[in-house]
Amino acid sequence: MKRLIVASATVLASLVSLPAAAQFQKPEDAIKYRQSAFTVMANHLGRVGAMAQGRVPFDAKAAADNAAIVVTMSKLPWVAFGEGTDKGMPTRAKPEIWKDSAKVKDLAEKMQAEAVKFEAAAKSGNLDSVKAAVGDLGKACKACHDDYRAEKYSAN
Amino acid sequence: MKRLIVASATVLASLVSLPAAAQFQKPEDAIKYRQSAFTVMANHLGRVGAMAQGRVPFDAKAAADNAAIVVTMSKLPWVAFGEGTDKGMPTRAKPEIWKDSAKVKDLAEKMQAEAVKFEAAAKSGNLDSVKAAVGDLGKACKACHDDYRAEKYSAN
Repeated sequence: MKRLIVASATVLASLVSLPAAAQFQKPEDAIKYRQSAFTVMANHLGRVGAMAQGRVPFDAKAAADNAAIVVTMSKLPWVAFGEGTDKGMPTRAKPEIWKDSAKVKDLAEKMQAEAVKFEAAAKSGNLDSVKAAVGDLGKACKACHDDYRAEKYSAN
Repeated sequence: MKRLIVASATVLASLVSLPAAAQFQKPEDAIKYRQSAFTVMANHLGRVGAMAQGRVPFDAKAAADNAAIVVTMSKLPWVAFGEGTDKGMPTRAKPEIWKDSAKVKDLAEKMQAEAVKFEAAAKSGNLDSVKAAVGDLGKACKACHDDYRAEKYSAN
């Protein structure tokens, strides 16, 4: 099982700068890891989103710091979508992820590109640019969620 | 509840460069976030640990990339230990965390300092230095876990 996970992860791992030796002993390790990376990413995007929506005051330094974390996180989850990681613990990953791997790879790359643009906007210190970039990155997240993330967690 | 969480989080937030406006709507958001940050940190430390133990070949570039992620992650969880985040979803955080906040802060700072040393060792490309730094960082993690992390998750 471990060998299967690592071998298949190599395809998605080409998206990231880290090697595919992902140290996932069990499918649940991979699922927990990718969910964790998405959770951290969403939180830090949310902190800037709150500024974009005027719910908290715009703080250019904090926005840039949060955006840098978003960029780091955006690169991580993909290596954890190897074959055999569709179950093992509750997951919202739809089975189509492993059928449409080329499309998923494309969506993942687009999201990562939007994250880089988002960081550049945050570094610019221009709130209007940040607002636009938050929207674009949110759309890139949603594009994948619409087709590949289930509403509810699986039972296992 | 939200105000309580944010106010208490300010103390621990002094450990990190990000402001305390952590956007935790509910205690479970904070618990999920800190668990996620620790999960990502442990994974990337583990990838270098596998090199240190000779289970995978030493790759200096990969070690440095992983160490950089460990440093980023080491700064994040603390803001999510605000008052009122001792329950809300299953957690291994012991109640003593909120009684011994000065000691926990000290342990958290020591761990972050070891993470920085670990990254420096990884960047040096010297495997012996990496082995020593992995050990030191692991001890700094364990020092907190021994007293403040329960064996089992709470029921809620």
